[in-house]
Amino acid sequence: MNTVVKSPTQTVLIGPEQPFVIIGERINPTGRKRLEAEMLAGDLSRVERDALAQVAAGAHILDINSGVTSIEPHKTEPELMTRCIELVQTITDAPLCIDSSVVPALIAGIQAAKGRPIVNSVTGEEERLESVLPVVAEYDVPVIAISNDESGISYDPKVRFAVAKKIVKRAESYGIKPQDVIIDPLAMPIGAVRTAGIDLFTIVRMVREELGCNTVCGASNISFGLPNRAAINSAFVPMAMAAGMTCAITNPLEKEIRHAVYAADVLMGNDQDCMRYLAAMREAEADASGSTSAGDDRRAARAARRASRRERLSGNE
Amino acid sequence: MNTVVKSPTQTVLIGPEQPFVIIGERINPTGRKRLEAEMLAGDLSRVERDALAQVAAGAHILDINSGVTSIEPHKTEPELMTRCIELVQTITDAPLCIDSSVVPALIAGIQAAKGRPIVNSVTGEEERLESVLPVVAEYDVPVIAISNDESGISYDPKVRFAVAKKIVKRAESYGIKPQDVIIDPLAMPIGAVRTAGIDLFTIVRMVREELGCNTVCGASNISFGLPNRAAINSAFVPMAMAAGMTCAITNPLEKEIRHAVYAADVLMGNDQDCMRYLAAMREAEADASGSTSAGDDRRAARAARRASRRERLSGNE
Repeated sequence: MNTVVKSPTQTVLIGPEQPFVIIGERINPTGRKRLEAEMLAGDLSRVERDALAQVAAGAHILDINSGVTSIEPHKTEPELMTRCIELVQTITDAPLCIDSSVVPALIAGIQAAKGRPIVNSVTGEEERLESVLPVVAEYDVPVIAISNDESGISYDPKVRFAVAKKIVKRAESYGIKPQDVIIDPLAMPIGAVRTAGIDLFTIVRMVREELGCNTVCGASNISFGLPNRAAINSAFVPMAMAAGMTCAITNPLEKEIRHAVYAADVLMGNDQDCMRYLAAMREAEADASGSTSAGDDRRAARAARRASRRERLSGNE
Repeated sequence: MNTVVKSPTQTVLIGPEQPFVIIGERINPTGRKRLEAEMLAGDLSRVERDALAQVAAGAHILDINSGVTSIEPHKTEPELMTRCIELVQTITDAPLCIDSSVVPALIAGIQAAKGRPIVNSVTGEEERLESVLPVVAEYDVPVIAISNDESGISYDPKVRFAVAKKIVKRAESYGIKPQDVIIDPLAMPIGAVRTAGIDLFTIVRMVREELGCNTVCGASNISFGLPNRAAINSAFVPMAMAAGMTCAITNPLEKEIRHAVYAADVLMGNDQDCMRYLAAMREAEADASGSTSAGDDRRAARAARRASRRERLSGNE
């Protein structure tokens, strides 16, 4: 069963027989000091640019995080979330992913978002389960479930799977279906945790086989601290896809990751007649040899996005 | 259990907890008209260059194919195989993979090769099983087993797995252990066969779990007919590795594939302290910014190879 995410004009299906879904990670002030300062000052021009650039580069869904400060986040985040979402919806058609650890900000985001956004996120912590899941159930939206709980992030993949299972069961008790719970098994930095890759692949496979849920992760986290992170990331995403991962929160502006996703979709049998791959390669080649040479080959991304959208629209829910 | 492959001075271990093994595919006149003409004329200078370049670029094992012509192959191939192997052994330390469909050429190759070469290949065809396996048993060498039989290559992964299983059982009847049978599940062109990727991943996983054998494939075959084949190949190899593939016959001169293998080794937990990856990235960066700018960044490959060899030598059989 697919997870259905919607804007007023677009439906994105997340599932094992769908093209892999890229959730653009850029609209997030965490670790982006300039963006944080601007957002605090009420300047959302960079949010606007990030939204447009990511959609042009092939993001299917945009993550929106307005966590600008830890000072009274309950006061600042909800209003800023609303403003970000209203802005982004005026300039793109992409469905949204509302990203906050502050429940009132999640509620404000859901209310501002048109269509069916993703809520990002719940965890296995009792307090989060009991504060986020009722909201998810009330608004009938999908939720990202991070596989940690009060005891932290376990190094044991079986424990992380057990946390995921607990969240899915609790969600069911609120009437939330498994296809509306997207498990994040947590990508730890491979430079620090040697088994981070295989542990994640194991959990992804177990979640697919035993819980029937989609899985997601913050894909660039895996390469934290290593040089040439794009090389690690662009091997990691296809490997996670082979294990069954169906979407990732990542940066579509990185050409290596984008091309790895398109190639891996072909290899998973989820790019009919290789249409999206062929469009992306044609345009990348035109850009490389060509007149404008845009650098981040946005045209390739646009062509791929068009092909991808055509395919998605022709599919069934 | 690892497959053990040896030259007089090097031991290469193939196994799920070892770094992925690259078998250099270049010394093969199939589809290389100039090389074929030269080999027929007795000129092996290109074989020499291909051997050196592939080892410099990180090949752990060199495939040697001397199938220059279909005219009287039994007469031309064995002698040419012997000459190629004797030449390659004078200039490199890499273990070898003796590649022929002609049994006398396999025997000539085994006799010429010092150490413990791989025999490439047997299939599930009765005539091949009964002519190749006795040779493999007599010389106690590992063999690549291709999962087709008299009925051809099945589109059904279960049938290809059944052929693999049949070969392993037959090999056992000759006293050949499962760790000395390396299954090639056959990578079909994904542009023509939409399920070629997932079928291969399925067979690789089944072979590992149910037969305990290593798996290999001709990795570039998957991208036949598509543009930018390196993009497909360098997503495919990590995905196959995630499914459990432990070596591939491929072209190490392609930087994208090499870097994908190093990154995927990190992600599989098989590159201790990321040593090989870090060495390769450092040198690639030096080459990119640097004085000599060798183009195919052989220095990076050499550094990675050194790191890889150190790790392999420190491992246990």
